[in-house]
Amino acid sequence: MNTINVKAYGTEAADAPLQGLSIPRREVAAHDVKIEILYCGVCHSDLHTARNEWHNTIYPNVPGHEVVGKVVSVGNHVKKFKVGDTVGIGCIVDSCRECQYCNEGLEQFCEPGMTGTYNSPDKYLPNVQTYGGYSESIVVDENYVLSIPENLDLAATAPLLCAGITTYSPLKHWNVGPGKNVGIVGIGGLGHMGIKIAKAMGAHVVAFTTSESKFKEAQRLGADEVVLSTDAAQMNKFRGKLHFILDAVSAEHDINAYLGLLRVDGSLALVGAPEQPLPVAAFSVILGRKSFAGSMIGGIAETQEMLDFCGKHNITADIEMIDMNQINEAYDRLLKGDIKYRFVIDMASLKN
Amino acid sequence: MNTINVKAYGTEAADAPLQGLSIPRREVAAHDVKIEILYCGVCHSDLHTARNEWHNTIYPNVPGHEVVGKVVSVGNHVKKFKVGDTVGIGCIVDSCRECQYCNEGLEQFCEPGMTGTYNSPDKYLPNVQTYGGYSESIVVDENYVLSIPENLDLAATAPLLCAGITTYSPLKHWNVGPGKNVGIVGIGGLGHMGIKIAKAMGAHVVAFTTSESKFKEAQRLGADEVVLSTDAAQMNKFRGKLHFILDAVSAEHDINAYLGLLRVDGSLALVGAPEQPLPVAAFSVILGRKSFAGSMIGGIAETQEMLDFCGKHNITADIEMIDMNQINEAYDRLLKGDIKYRFVIDMASLKN
Repeated sequence: MNTINVKAYGTEAADAPLQGLSIPRREVAAHDVKIEILYCGVCHSDLHTARNEWHNTIYPNVPGHEVVGKVVSVGNHVKKFKVGDTVGIGCIVDSCRECQYCNEGLEQFCEPGMTGTYNSPDKYLPNVQTYGGYSESIVVDENYVLSIPENLDLAATAPLLCAGITTYSPLKHWNVGPGKNVGIVGIGGLGHMGIKIAKAMGAHVVAFTTSESKFKEAQRLGADEVVLSTDAAQMNKFRGKLHFILDAVSAEHDINAYLGLLRVDGSLALVGAPEQPLPVAAFSVILGRKSFAGSMIGGIAETQEMLDFCGKHNITADIEMIDMNQINEAYDRLLKGDIKYRFVIDMASLKN
Repeated sequence: MNTINVKAYGTEAADAPLQGLSIPRREVAAHDVKIEILYCGVCHSDLHTARNEWHNTIYPNVPGHEVVGKVVSVGNHVKKFKVGDTVGIGCIVDSCRECQYCNEGLEQFCEPGMTGTYNSPDKYLPNVQTYGGYSESIVVDENYVLSIPENLDLAATAPLLCAGITTYSPLKHWNVGPGKNVGIVGIGGLGHMGIKIAKAMGAHVVAFTTSESKFKEAQRLGADEVVLSTDAAQMNKFRGKLHFILDAVSAEHDINAYLGLLRVDGSLALVGAPEQPLPVAAFSVILGRKSFAGSMIGGIAETQEMLDFCGKHNITADIEMIDMNQINEAYDRLLKGDIKYRFVIDMASLKN
């Protein structure tokens, strides 16, 4: 398959900074859409992968799976998109399309394995890993391309493609809506989206934070109540009261304290990924038939549904725009939690 | 309220053996049923409570919540039962009857707290804890009394009142039935009931054991397949294959190994109660949107439903009958797992 080299930003080793690279993109095939990338959000997974913290990175690595851009060419058989359309690419650029999970719209759980936007074996190019959105352009099968609602700010929409769907999917799956008390734990890149989306779904939103300084922020984002999770009295007030908890904390934390806040049959869904296993006491789940669950992004149809929902409710991420060459500094700030709430790269800066 | 003293077997301290005691039972009130106890199953909770292993035992303690007997008198307003009926008492003898959970038939999760058959504050007798089924007779409000199907062996039916409902309830709640692959972990008092009930529900039953010597037993009980859980190759064969796992192990064990056997959206429900928290890896639940859940006995209506189900499918426990004065020896054997699969006390032996 013919390829064209394009500019990108990535890394050659776990301990090397990100820098300019040239990467191959396939030529547009019958069902492909070629997208000029305008904005790319910065997800913590980008950093984990660039630095090989999950021990599965193949180099060179080009991160980025919160992509917004314009269609610049389409293959002969493409039906869903035309040149000039504003589109998005999330974490998934392909899957087997045949297994039971793909058939159910759960491409993220594709049995042979989904093709991630970066660091997955490329189905089209032998011996190459997929390269993500820190690049000029990307070529993706139309079935894995999303439409972006017209009313949303494009840069602030980019993080919806991962942070948005990662929080929307579990909130939807566990039936969050009017009459439900929903806890959102952690007010960061994921959590701030969780608050906005849960509120727009009609739930009563209770935000949990370890920092009193975030109270006003949480309220501004839409939380009806804010709880200092280090204060036992404040925590106790919600004992047995929450229908569902979205846990967006990646650091170690006491899961049992949160399970105690669930009502009977309540679930806590983890979307952060703490490195060490979380100790769950038997009685935390036995008393009240509770569930400690997890959730990972969402399928393609559900991602479109989330974008349409965000369009309808005028929801985007709170972002700080950076140039491509600020990415290493941004990673350092990400590690310190020094960002409200998502970095987005202005990809025009890659061209300079 | 007037009381009558009856013979019982219990203990005055955590480190004292069980012995004959005299305990008060209230006289039959308008809605009460008085039951002459014929058989009482021996649950591991009896031992935990007698020895104060959950640090909440008030002495004297009379254990026993797997009770089968005959109605010997009824209060003026009793409508559901008459003298001579064969009835059962499980783990619950009362609840508030007003909260949302009682209204939903989830008396086991009664908000102010259910009244346990033993070691709960007695609503009728001040400063007395409830005394369980290791006794001649018991007086219970008719709403907490169960009917026993006529076709079942009475002694072998007693364990259904706790072990039966503890396994039936989660199997029902998580929609076990035809077309579902169900894992049962641990082949003991609970697990052997889980195998029988899951099989009768029409599921494909996979039993997990650490002991090859239990393979034939598991098959006899109804397992379609048996897996040696210490053999990685055997475990791996079921990776991503099970819709639901009922985990009846009270000892420490590797929950993540079992979560890996679940399909997408699968749940593992713990019904044993390991003393130490179980470390759950984030990716064990995030990949596949899985749940680590728990379940505790079942409500009154569901317990009746379980008894009727067992009557229809001719299911009882596999038991070893003992006399009342063998209870201390039985506890020692219980700790060693030296029982197939439930001790049942012939309460006639208490009268001698």
